[in-house]
Amino acid sequence: MIENEYSPLRKFVAGFVNVTDEEWRLHEAVLRRRNLKKGEWIIKQGQICEYVSFINYGCFRIYNIVKEEEVTTDFRFEGHYITDYRSFLTQQPSTEYIIALEDAEVIELHYNDMQTLYEKVPSWQKYGRLIAEFLYIKVTERAQSLLFDSPEELYTRLMKERPKVIENMPQRYIASYLGIQPESLSRIRKRMMTQDGRDV
Amino acid sequence: MIENEYSPLRKFVAGFVNVTDEEWRLHEAVLRRRNLKKGEWIIKQGQICEYVSFINYGCFRIYNIVKEEEVTTDFRFEGHYITDYRSFLTQQPSTEYIIALEDAEVIELHYNDMQTLYEKVPSWQKYGRLIAEFLYIKVTERAQSLLFDSPEELYTRLMKERPKVIENMPQRYIASYLGIQPESLSRIRKRMMTQDGRDV
Repeated sequence: MIENEYSPLRKFVAGFVNVTDEEWRLHEAVLRRRNLKKGEWIIKQGQICEYVSFINYGCFRIYNIVKEEEVTTDFRFEGHYITDYRSFLTQQPSTEYIIALEDAEVIELHYNDMQTLYEKVPSWQKYGRLIAEFLYIKVTERAQSLLFDSPEELYTRLMKERPKVIENMPQRYIASYLGIQPESLSRIRKRMMTQDGRDV
Repeated sequence: MIENEYSPLRKFVAGFVNVTDEEWRLHEAVLRRRNLKKGEWIIKQGQICEYVSFINYGCFRIYNIVKEEEVTTDFRFEGHYITDYRSFLTQQPSTEYIIALEDAEVIELHYNDMQTLYEKVPSWQKYGRLIAEFLYIKVTERAQSLLFDSPEELYTRLMKERPKVIENMPQRYIASYLGIQPESLSRIRKRMMTQDGRDV
């Protein structure tokens, strides 16, 4: 296996399915590298998402604009896909914005090439199924969490499951992601630190 | 094609992929029919969802219990699957309750048989992918709608996209599904009827 700019993606795929060298060759042939500057959008509301993008380096924020206010709905870091998968699957306009929070490099695969891979490469059907199932589980858990968890529970879960978000993102984005005001997030953090102190 | 109790499911599957008679025979061999009485649960919180179930007749309500209160999260009618797919996929305990709102008949497929079908039947991988993608799109749209739409917009969307829910479900379940109080739902319905009258 030759190490190149597509190797991180190959490792990611190998976490889901076995891919032969021949199968990977077919995949690699339709990939392309794209570099983004900090503040550049991968997609904006109203555009159709034509590519799935895998992050080689950099990080991204996903947000919607609701009543002229930005609402942050997710973050993505290197080693994962960053895509409006709903828009990609339906080939309907995106409802969201995806912006690079620092200079970034992604590996892109076009919608049409994805369909060809599904027809040509049997393991690709399985990969597509496992990815869709993985995303379904994630979005279901997130929706249930937003519906049923208190702000404290949401923040505790975020700390436990996605510490990278806490470490790397500004407070205002985290608050927005949790559906609370920045002041409420400050209070929660303060309360938790005091409780930690008491427990020790 | 022989018409039997599995025919509605075969028609549903045919809406996604082409299935040969031989492939269907392999599928049918592992299906089983189950009858439920009104008020019986398909699954309860804490149980692991071992089957996907396709509704031949009857309807179901999905709910969670949050702080000792029932919160309705979805409804399902005949001709569709009714399953905690997150629990099924992960084989982890369910977080929800699924109850029959009237006498019902479902066609069940066990988790282990599903895995065997994925290995044996190539079209099954594609079917599994398309179903997972379909569910991902639905849950994403529902989550976005709950986050960004006003109660009026939620109700209008429900009327347009799922009139069966409006026609068949009690107001208190619909209100819960929309995340509002029953009194708020009454006000919204009243306001809409007045507006309709004015428009005519």
